[in-house]
Amino acid sequence: MSEKNRLELFREKRSKMNDKVMDLDHLGIKRFFNMDTNTYREGALPTQTKELLGLVASAVLRCNDCIDYHLEQCAKTGSTKAEIVDALNVALIVGGSIVIPHLRHAAETLELLESEGILNPG
Amino acid sequence: MSEKNRLELFREKRSKMNDKVMDLDHLGIKRFFNMDTNTYREGALPTQTKELLGLVASAVLRCNDCIDYHLEQCAKTGSTKAEIVDALNVALIVGGSIVIPHLRHAAETLELLESEGILNPG
Amino acid sequence: MSEKNRLELFREKRSKMNDKVMDLDHLGIKRFFNMDTNTYREGALPTQTKELLGLVASAVLRCNDCIDYHLEQCAKTGSTKAEIVDALNVALIVGGSIVIPHLRHAAETLELLESEGILNPG
Amino acid sequence: MSEKNRLELFREKRSKMNDKVMDLDHLGIKRFFNMDTNTYREGALPTQTKELLGLVASAVLRCNDCIDYHLEQCAKTGSTKAEIVDALNVALIVGGSIVIPHLRHAAETLELLESEGILNPG
Amino acid sequence: MSEKNRLELFREKRSKMNDKVMDLDHLGIKRFFNMDTNTYREGALPTQTKELLGLVASAVLRCNDCIDYHLEQCAKTGSTKAEIVDALNVALIVGGSIVIPHLRHAAETLELLESEGILNPG
Amino acid sequence: MSEKNRLELFREKRSKMNDKVMDLDHLGIKRFFNMDTNTYREGALPTQTKELLGLVASAVLRCNDCIDYHLEQCAKTGSTKAEIVDALNVALIVGGSIVIPHLRHAAETLELLESEGILNPG
Repeated sequence: MSEKNRLELFREKRSKMNDKVMDLDHLGIKRFFNMDTNTYREGALPTQTKELLGLVASAVLRCNDCIDYHLEQCAKTGSTKAEIVDALNVALIVGGSIVIPHLRHAAETLELLESEGILNPG
Repeated sequence: MSEKNRLELFREKRSKMNDKVMDLDHLGIKRFFNMDTNTYREGALPTQTKELLGLVASAVLRCNDCIDYHLEQCAKTGSTKAEIVDALNVALIVGGSIVIPHLRHAAETLELLESEGILNPG
Repeated sequence: MSEKNRLELFREKRSKMNDKVMDLDHLGIKRFFNMDTNTYREGALPTQTKELLGLVASAVLRCNDCIDYHLEQCAKTGSTKAEIVDALNVALIVGGSIVIPHLRHAAETLELLESEGILNPG
Repeated sequence: MSEKNRLELFREKRSKMNDKVMDLDHLGIKRFFNMDTNTYREGALPTQTKELLGLVASAVLRCNDCIDYHLEQCAKTGSTKAEIVDALNVALIVGGSIVIPHLRHAAETLELLESEGILNPG
Repeated sequence: MSEKNRLELFREKRSKMNDKVMDLDHLGIKRFFNMDTNTYREGALPTQTKELLGLVASAVLRCNDCIDYHLEQCAKTGSTKAEIVDALNVALIVGGSIVIPHLRHAAETLELLESEGILNPG
Repeated sequence: MSEKNRLELFREKRSKMNDKVMDLDHLGIKRFFNMDTNTYREGALPTQTKELLGLVASAVLRCNDCIDYHLEQCAKTGSTKAEIVDALNVALIVGGSIVIPHLRHAAETLELLESEGILNPG
């Protein structure tokens, strides 16, 4: 059996850790998580666009876990690789060279999503 | 003759100040400005979507001048008020309550853009 | 009649601008504002402590409007001037000299709160 | 002999690395470290409150090492788990969903502190 | 008598507000201010270089007051306008387009310093 | 054969990952990388000074990969260990105690650069 890749390990850890956060049993935190989920629901903007917004926000704020999560959501909601990369370019120009290490991380994640057949090369 | 509003004064100052930056006559800075402009050109993503991305990046990084600039570009490239507000909601949830003063600023700017007939209420 | 001071003008503008944000009529934004208010309610920690936490978070994230708001709440919930300044010192050491301009702003706000009789000198 | 957990490894590495920083032998850096320690000493505010302030500052600035350090100090200075989680909720609402990965990290650290008998469940 | 320009007003306000901070009479804050001053003293690096470092740090952290202060110190410690602008270009590329409004501000401040005869055009 | 140290592994991974970014084949991203490289070329300021500026910007923005990269460039362009540490002290005072974990990281990287004979102890 082949070893799990970085993205598979991330998904597992993220899910397990979210359970630990829920176990803290704080009403405010639970409501925030609920609201966070609702934010990306279909609204005036389609979910696909909102996931691109979440990705760019995550990239300029430089959070790899958030980037990985939104990259997968972008792919699953129909954004092509070319579209996602074009969004990352906006993050790079707004956020500057300090974003580059996160762009490297994102490039690897995109490769993993592509190998899993989740990402449309566009 | 009526006094200029905040947005009109901002446009004038921004333009005058950009000239001062160009007058610094630094090749690297000039090339950055050129690249910044190119970033929002039609590409894998349409300009309209990229302007929404620029707006959300500006909001989570909390820069009122950048927010005003991208709000106007969003309106001019066809995003409705409802779509822009939905994008700002993503910025609010990602960036937290520290974004609220910038959301207040944005609400006022949207009002000004609407009164100028630039913004489609959607 | 004497002119309004900076803090009085801030309170008026903040209230007027919050109304504009509510008028944007976005359910997610309204729920966020509601949750934000609830966060500082009496819980495992008393409101007084939470307002000090909100103040320090605002100071290290360098938002003058947020600092002014929490300074007033700190004073109203019973923190003395000496306690508030001790909290600001934590923000200064964590956030560094880039926080100093906001410390200057806070010192002036504390002076205004004191002149209004809201702040207990401690 | 059982393997060391993440928190034990962090304490060891932090201590070893602080020694390396001291070995850089820069007077300014040494004085900063000294001042940093003094900041959390009993003052107008008790150490217990200041550690909660340090925790929230660390969370909104999104530094896991700082979060782990202050979580342990909060536990050792008498804050209960419920109080610490209530403080983290303030950080979450001020800092937004970008804080969530650090909240996950904190939830795990709290579990480790609890298993070591350092943390009072409250 | 001609009106004071933005830079003159800034110097006056900064000085008056620093006095207010000292009047808060907190030992930790006073020691931080003292340490801050010492940081830019001649050391392994000359003051001139350290002021350029302080300028770039201020620019990427996006604080206009800090930028104005360090611009003046850079000019006074012998950096030419061309050298200062080259340093600002590093800040622009590291920090991205979100730095641009601060670059505009800096361009105007440089103009004022030049008109006062403090800045060597290089 | 001895195992590779952290710095050697970083160099390899950084190079491999930069290739992945180039393979994304986005003109804007490619031009940004090109411009980033040009920024540190000899100009009004010498490369040696610009690398110190890049280091301090990286430290206050708290990016370990960027810190490691600039530490090596600083060493290679002739800054001594004492000069680099003096620059890091500026970053510490401007950025505050939240920079300390990155200072720890930098201290270890300096040790590795010294053991490789790249760094002049000064």
